[in-house]
Amino acid sequence: MIAVLAGGVGAARFLAGLVGVVAEAEVTVVGNTGDDTVLHGLHVSPDLDTVTYTLAGAVNQATGWGLAGDSFQTMDALSRYNVATWFRLGDRDLATHLFRTQRLAAGATLTEVTAEITTAWGLGLTLLPMTDDDVRTRLRLADGREVEFQEYFVRLRHQVAVESIAYVGTESAVPAPGVVAALEAAEAIVLAPSNPLLSVAPILAVPGIGEVLADRRDRVVAISPIVAGRALKGPADHLLVELGHESSAAGVARLLRPYCGCIVIDAADDDLADRVAATGVRAVVADTVMRTAKVAQALARTALSAVGAGRR
Amino acid sequence: MIAVLAGGVGAARFLAGLVGVVAEAEVTVVGNTGDDTVLHGLHVSPDLDTVTYTLAGAVNQATGWGLAGDSFQTMDALSRYNVATWFRLGDRDLATHLFRTQRLAAGATLTEVTAEITTAWGLGLTLLPMTDDDVRTRLRLADGREVEFQEYFVRLRHQVAVESIAYVGTESAVPAPGVVAALEAAEAIVLAPSNPLLSVAPILAVPGIGEVLADRRDRVVAISPIVAGRALKGPADHLLVELGHESSAAGVARLLRPYCGCIVIDAADDDLADRVAATGVRAVVADTVMRTAKVAQALARTALSAVGAGRR
Repeated sequence: MIAVLAGGVGAARFLAGLVGVVAEAEVTVVGNTGDDTVLHGLHVSPDLDTVTYTLAGAVNQATGWGLAGDSFQTMDALSRYNVATWFRLGDRDLATHLFRTQRLAAGATLTEVTAEITTAWGLGLTLLPMTDDDVRTRLRLADGREVEFQEYFVRLRHQVAVESIAYVGTESAVPAPGVVAALEAAEAIVLAPSNPLLSVAPILAVPGIGEVLADRRDRVVAISPIVAGRALKGPADHLLVELGHESSAAGVARLLRPYCGCIVIDAADDDLADRVAATGVRAVVADTVMRTAKVAQALARTALSAVGAGRR
Repeated sequence: MIAVLAGGVGAARFLAGLVGVVAEAEVTVVGNTGDDTVLHGLHVSPDLDTVTYTLAGAVNQATGWGLAGDSFQTMDALSRYNVATWFRLGDRDLATHLFRTQRLAAGATLTEVTAEITTAWGLGLTLLPMTDDDVRTRLRLADGREVEFQEYFVRLRHQVAVESIAYVGTESAVPAPGVVAALEAAEAIVLAPSNPLLSVAPILAVPGIGEVLADRRDRVVAISPIVAGRALKGPADHLLVELGHESSAAGVARLLRPYCGCIVIDAADDDLADRVAATGVRAVVADTVMRTAKVAQALARTALSAVGAGRR
């Protein structure tokens, strides 16, 4: 069994590679729900959906999220009502949020609804939300404002400096059913190439999850989302700097070292291998820029074998 | 001031004619909400929306409800989740339901949301729900089943015999703010050509509304939705018979006589004028089949002048 802690786009691409090299049924994904939000009254779980749509081969490749070829009739029509529509939900995508919201209102847990959704999309792996409780990533901006994740990420296009990040609700949250068991049983635990502060950290902040990883640190391999000092997507690079870290594979290794014994860094960061190793995290060098399925599969193989897993 | 008690399609067509002959600002519509339902977690008010969309010139002319040229991407996508989608909501139409649901959840009343929606569509008249409270038309079928209005109307396509109808919630419902005042101040009150049992009756059943009409009966004019024994649209004809009434202008007059002093019947029912008069309701003959805007306007003029209103 392989467990993967996953954010959105980068994690989904890695998972698409992973299921090319291990059986889907062997994979359990623990998805970040700190980005979850309520939009137009609907419960949206962006990271879970990005994983589902990507693995179903239905994701919008251009954006990395949402559904390929989706239309935006409902959003266009909503603008008539002076409703903020900076977060654009496609018409077919809306069906997922309507379904999720309806099922949650009927008393289902997010774990249950997520299983129903992944089954409906024909996924063979297990996708678990990190928790069924409400955890919300909130950012205090350098200008003093406090905003929700989606406001920062979508409305402000992450073009503002951040002073601090809080994972609100983690104090009382518990891991979703199956999460701890999957992490305890996993031959390898992969921290997908997701934003360490916005995607991986909220998962690790759920009481019980970070602890299992720390205990099983030699089985945990991270993939650096920072290549040559830059994030491939999103604000990870400047966010790391704003919060006092280094925007490099070494900075990521230092941040994640309590949880992982190994990190895959990009060939472009070959020269950082010694600095990474100095943090106490073993560095493995590979091509981490998943331009093709082949590269993603090779990366998955490298990550698994780095912790002695996946050989059969 | 003119007040109109309105169901869906027939009422909307009449209102489109009415606003061609009196200033929109003079018209208050009291809309039926007994057909309201919650679909996919969204509060749908079919009759209110049909009035709004029709007066905005945006209604789907072929069906009489929904928006012209709307797409159904969300509904198609919902079918993946094994959700009942017999009630098809268009993508642009969905925006209205999302907005309404969201505002109601935020504490707005249906009256407030309805005003926001009609304003957004540029309507100049006042559209009021009959009540802000939950009233639901429920039907007991001849086979013993009990169904909600939309289940009867849409899923079963009203092709089943009805034994009785209940307007659940009317016991404790109160008229929406402005309804009673509008009815008391109106120079004329029109019972639009809507189903007398499914559209007009729920409005009259809200405590206080029927009473005002009974008190002001000489100011109230109905338009028969039955022409030559048949309903122009929907199940009014067989429903009247199933519930022990007569499917004719005379049957409608007998049913509505506590509330209206006058009824406009179709030229095709000229021969029924005496039988209508015998019920104690004055009969006025006109072309009631609103094939064109001209006919609808002429019908509005006839209805108003029948109770001595609308001449200026």
